[in-house]
Amino acid sequence: MLAEIITIGDEILIGQIVDTNSAYISKELNKIGVKVYQITSIQDDKVHILQAFKDAKKHADLIIVTGGLGPTKDDITKQTFCDFFEDTLIENQEVTENVKQLFEKYQIGKILPANFQQAMVPSKATILMNLYGTAPGMWMEKDNTVFVSLPGVPYEMKHLLQDEVLPRTIKRFNRPFIYHKTLLTYGLGESAVAERIVDWENNLPETIKLAYLPSLGKVRLRLSSSGSNETILKESIDSRMDILAEKLSDIAIGFEDETSIVDRIAHILNEKQQTLSLAESCTGGAIAKQITEEAGVSSFFLGGIVPYKTELKTKILGVSAALIQEYSVVSIQVAESMATNSCKLFNTDYAIATTGIAGPTKGDGIDEVGTVCIAIASPVGIISEKFSFGNDRFRVIEKTINKAFEMLLKEISKN
Amino acid sequence: MLAEIITIGDEILIGQIVDTNSAYISKELNKIGVKVYQITSIQDDKVHILQAFKDAKKHADLIIVTGGLGPTKDDITKQTFCDFFEDTLIENQEVTENVKQLFEKYQIGKILPANFQQAMVPSKATILMNLYGTAPGMWMEKDNTVFVSLPGVPYEMKHLLQDEVLPRTIKRFNRPFIYHKTLLTYGLGESAVAERIVDWENNLPETIKLAYLPSLGKVRLRLSSSGSNETILKESIDSRMDILAEKLSDIAIGFEDETSIVDRIAHILNEKQQTLSLAESCTGGAIAKQITEEAGVSSFFLGGIVPYKTELKTKILGVSAALIQEYSVVSIQVAESMATNSCKLFNTDYAIATTGIAGPTKGDGIDEVGTVCIAIASPVGIISEKFSFGNDRFRVIEKTINKAFEMLLKEISKN
Repeated sequence: MLAEIITIGDEILIGQIVDTNSAYISKELNKIGVKVYQITSIQDDKVHILQAFKDAKKHADLIIVTGGLGPTKDDITKQTFCDFFEDTLIENQEVTENVKQLFEKYQIGKILPANFQQAMVPSKATILMNLYGTAPGMWMEKDNTVFVSLPGVPYEMKHLLQDEVLPRTIKRFNRPFIYHKTLLTYGLGESAVAERIVDWENNLPETIKLAYLPSLGKVRLRLSSSGSNETILKESIDSRMDILAEKLSDIAIGFEDETSIVDRIAHILNEKQQTLSLAESCTGGAIAKQITEEAGVSSFFLGGIVPYKTELKTKILGVSAALIQEYSVVSIQVAESMATNSCKLFNTDYAIATTGIAGPTKGDGIDEVGTVCIAIASPVGIISEKFSFGNDRFRVIEKTINKAFEMLLKEISKN
Repeated sequence: MLAEIITIGDEILIGQIVDTNSAYISKELNKIGVKVYQITSIQDDKVHILQAFKDAKKHADLIIVTGGLGPTKDDITKQTFCDFFEDTLIENQEVTENVKQLFEKYQIGKILPANFQQAMVPSKATILMNLYGTAPGMWMEKDNTVFVSLPGVPYEMKHLLQDEVLPRTIKRFNRPFIYHKTLLTYGLGESAVAERIVDWENNLPETIKLAYLPSLGKVRLRLSSSGSNETILKESIDSRMDILAEKLSDIAIGFEDETSIVDRIAHILNEKQQTLSLAESCTGGAIAKQITEEAGVSSFFLGGIVPYKTELKTKILGVSAALIQEYSVVSIQVAESMATNSCKLFNTDYAIATTGIAGPTKGDGIDEVGTVCIAIASPVGIISEKFSFGNDRFRVIEKTINKAFEMLLKEISKN
């Protein structure tokens, strides 16, 4: 059982947007045992779309098409489905009602003729009602291959996939089990990790595939396999992963999907009933954002401050101006003072402080671009370290975030 | 002149990572007049890779392949290039030297045999030296079609693309000019925007394509065209865009790539020599992050506070506990007090304050999930508004960010 994903939209091919839909759909299909053979992004062009449909039909049993369903003129997916399936558009009353209700509920304003166009659908299609937008999904079959059309708006696509496409796919197709498990490690490079586990890797059976996924201070190690017996499959991968986690226990923080570094931190702090605050200068709120993206963090995360201007480190955080004068604003002394004072200001057990030069220019300081100091204050003291994270602003910030979480996790794990 | 992009890696097909490389490559190719016909993501599988190479060769003059060049066993791109080009791997001394130098420079530790494998390259390939990583890029030709292999690590890929691939492509191929221009609008939906510009849209010539790109409170309108005369092409699109910007002057904030809403805000505040601070509760640092992602913002952005825990709104920001008690923590009264006090604490002219329930649960408050209050304090007073942003955590936060920037821009534009 193979699937293909086809995303339609010039905006992807000219690089105006990043295709996040395909990653989401692939992940969800994998969970129900459907392997994605290929992802293809093509233009809003009828000839090209029809060609892609034909090509995909050669390999895939299920073809999920996203995009091109908007109410405006540049969207041509529905008409192309009609061509491919030798069909015509007819009005679907239910969709008309849905459009009316959406406009009422969200008080969007008066309904325009273009909005009612959304109710014109191929006559042979099974309509997948979109409760969060005006464009319905469609499910059509040809020679035993299922074609599904979904809107490109990620939120609407996700709901239709979960509520309609996945349940129908489970009913319609026999699927094996696919199982992935990914270990998250922080602090060592890809080849250094590989060297430490070479014997373990050489003992993996052919049926289990290992992948290394390195990025900015992290390496993720994934095992994948598929088979007909879910229990045996999981056991086989889980047991190998347990050995791996043990071998890498000094750098591994847990398994992806089960956990993230924020989850790990949350779990430990909640268990100990301890709390965290942040004083972020060079990361500018990015650590706070990463924590608060997850729901339910208010039990341990009390708050943070971004004293972007140097004087505010003194005025609000109480870092001594003389200290900044003596050691420079990017120094372990200042980072430590920021962390200690953050604990006081927010009344927390732990604090992360970051100060650095993310670049691209040095600003008016004396430190080189990429210089970053991170400090972690804890109930038993304070640790800090100075780093050189290169000269790319985005990477400097990302590396600082990853390193700060890594340092915090080590501290809370030992105290 | 057409290009295709092939990304190799199971991690994309199982949805473990989002393919950002293709968007970057597409955008850069477009800038030099190369149209991307298709983007294809395939598995780390030799048969599939060879099939994709054959298919792409039918349409494209330039095929850029990313991924599969790591030092570990799961990476098979180089061997597959050898198969496709009937070639063998040989050692490249320059790459060996580069690997040594990288290890020295970044003090990564001792070089492992796997790292030296990176110097084994197809004998017919022109090597594109990678100064930021151990895997070199490759440039090979077959029947007038150019195949380029680049590492999948975004940072390394970007440098090789800029320093090697784009200059060589400009030299090797005749290209037309491709021109896109995108107007950014905030606050109206896609079909409402379309209705306001229907006459203008109907007058567009066949050769100019219009696309609507809606997302969470924003709609972007893009005009695209290609041709041999750059001056005529730009003039033709620029003049139409100027009319459009004029028609939508109440909701348009400028052109993408030239500006962003943070740029616009920075420009106006810098010109007026005014300053901004933030008091973010439900956005949890996300607005600060979006501002500080851009370099050079310290001239107007002084800092921000994330008083995530309710008591901290009182303790640090000085919002009266009685006010919170009376109106609830998610109220325009509390948002306004947060904004006013943020101006005082950070000594700024303007402040944005956000307070809301991002969900998925209501927490211990009385307000529904998705309820958000935003306030903007300015030198002449304060404005605020209460919103219902639905029940999806990610969307609630994103809509709040976009709306807050929209409200701030309006305020700073008028005062």
